[in-house]
Amino acid sequence: MSALSKDDFVARLRQEGEKRYHDHHPFHVRMHAGELSRTQIQAWVLNRYYYQTRIPIKDAIILSKSDDPAFRRSWMQRIVDHDGKAEGEGGLAQWQRLAAGVGLDVEEVKSLSRVLPGVRFACDAYVQLVRERPLVEAVASSLTEFFSPDIMTRRIAAWETHYPWVDGATLAYFRGRVTRARDDSRQAIDYVLAHATGREQQERCIEALITKCHILWALLDAVSKEFPA
Amino acid sequence: MSALSKDDFVARLRQEGEKRYHDHHPFHVRMHAGELSRTQIQAWVLNRYYYQTRIPIKDAIILSKSDDPAFRRSWMQRIVDHDGKAEGEGGLAQWQRLAAGVGLDVEEVKSLSRVLPGVRFACDAYVQLVRERPLVEAVASSLTEFFSPDIMTRRIAAWETHYPWVDGATLAYFRGRVTRARDDSRQAIDYVLAHATGREQQERCIEALITKCHILWALLDAVSKEFPA
Repeated sequence: MSALSKDDFVARLRQEGEKRYHDHHPFHVRMHAGELSRTQIQAWVLNRYYYQTRIPIKDAIILSKSDDPAFRRSWMQRIVDHDGKAEGEGGLAQWQRLAAGVGLDVEEVKSLSRVLPGVRFACDAYVQLVRERPLVEAVASSLTEFFSPDIMTRRIAAWETHYPWVDGATLAYFRGRVTRARDDSRQAIDYVLAHATGREQQERCIEALITKCHILWALLDAVSKEFPA
Repeated sequence: MSALSKDDFVARLRQEGEKRYHDHHPFHVRMHAGELSRTQIQAWVLNRYYYQTRIPIKDAIILSKSDDPAFRRSWMQRIVDHDGKAEGEGGLAQWQRLAAGVGLDVEEVKSLSRVLPGVRFACDAYVQLVRERPLVEAVASSLTEFFSPDIMTRRIAAWETHYPWVDGATLAYFRGRVTRARDDSRQAIDYVLAHATGREQQERCIEALITKCHILWALLDAVSKEFPA
């Protein structure tokens, strides 16, 4: 098999990712259509928080796989984005405010004690994928960020329309992700295009992105099974 | 076995580390006594650079082992210290200037192509230790920083006295480490004291620090065997 051109490789990544992205999941479709109950919204926020806590961990693993200070300097920004520069800042703190905004007990959310087993397994599988695979495949798995700015924009509108009981100020995490995910996905795709040059490596990158889509999907499966309509 | 008091635990760590610290290694003693040749100094700088390149990698692994954004924020500073905030800044870039200052070809140093196998094995063992052990033991292994401000101060004086052919401006790495290592070791010991509370865990932390001392020692063994007086 000969290597894909850069354009074809990007097109394949976008196509395979787009059709499996979790915005097509029935639970997610109902979320944006305003059909979820308060309990379901709360369950999603509480369980998705576990995913959020795994992000800086998987990004630190990605850092540890690089020999290049320039790459590390740039990728480190992702950890800063989630952890913040000080207590109360950053994506994790914003998600905790979102948890409060949907009426959850923040300390309980932070304790992770009510996270569903299936959600844990899926998120841990993401960390494990990043740990086990070569750097370029680990980076490729983050390319769901391609689709994330769009979903965030739609989510803010949907939540403001359909769930007026949620404190709108606590949607800051989603707002911040619109531009951040755009920057992040540009950095990740540049890296993948530069370093996955053979066809076999390109296919493994596509496969890593598909697995990442399955992980996000499995998270919603677990939540929707436990909290059906 | 009952747990050591904090004071006794710190005393044991200091004692076990101090007596095995690599400033007692014959090669190191001769370095500070001004008895090394230009070739030996160059060999040390070139080989020790491999150790330097492993530091941000092991620190990223330590980051990935923590669930605590506050710990990560604080530990991340170590990676910034080595990688810098921009191209040409940070400890690795300073070490490259030191390499130039002792008359080495910087590109060759950066390529790592002349690093001795024994040096590689020792430094890789450090990364592996941090990868395999629990967070508190990985942190404890960094406590050689207890002894590092002192050795740096003595090194600057020794080099300025005995190796006047080395460009003094390129000793910046050693100068910067005096205060940084002091801050870093305080952070690390605070963490270890807070988290290694049972005796067994305390002993494992001491053992991790001893192994780290063996690693620094083995690095000098390899260099001094290949470049005898």
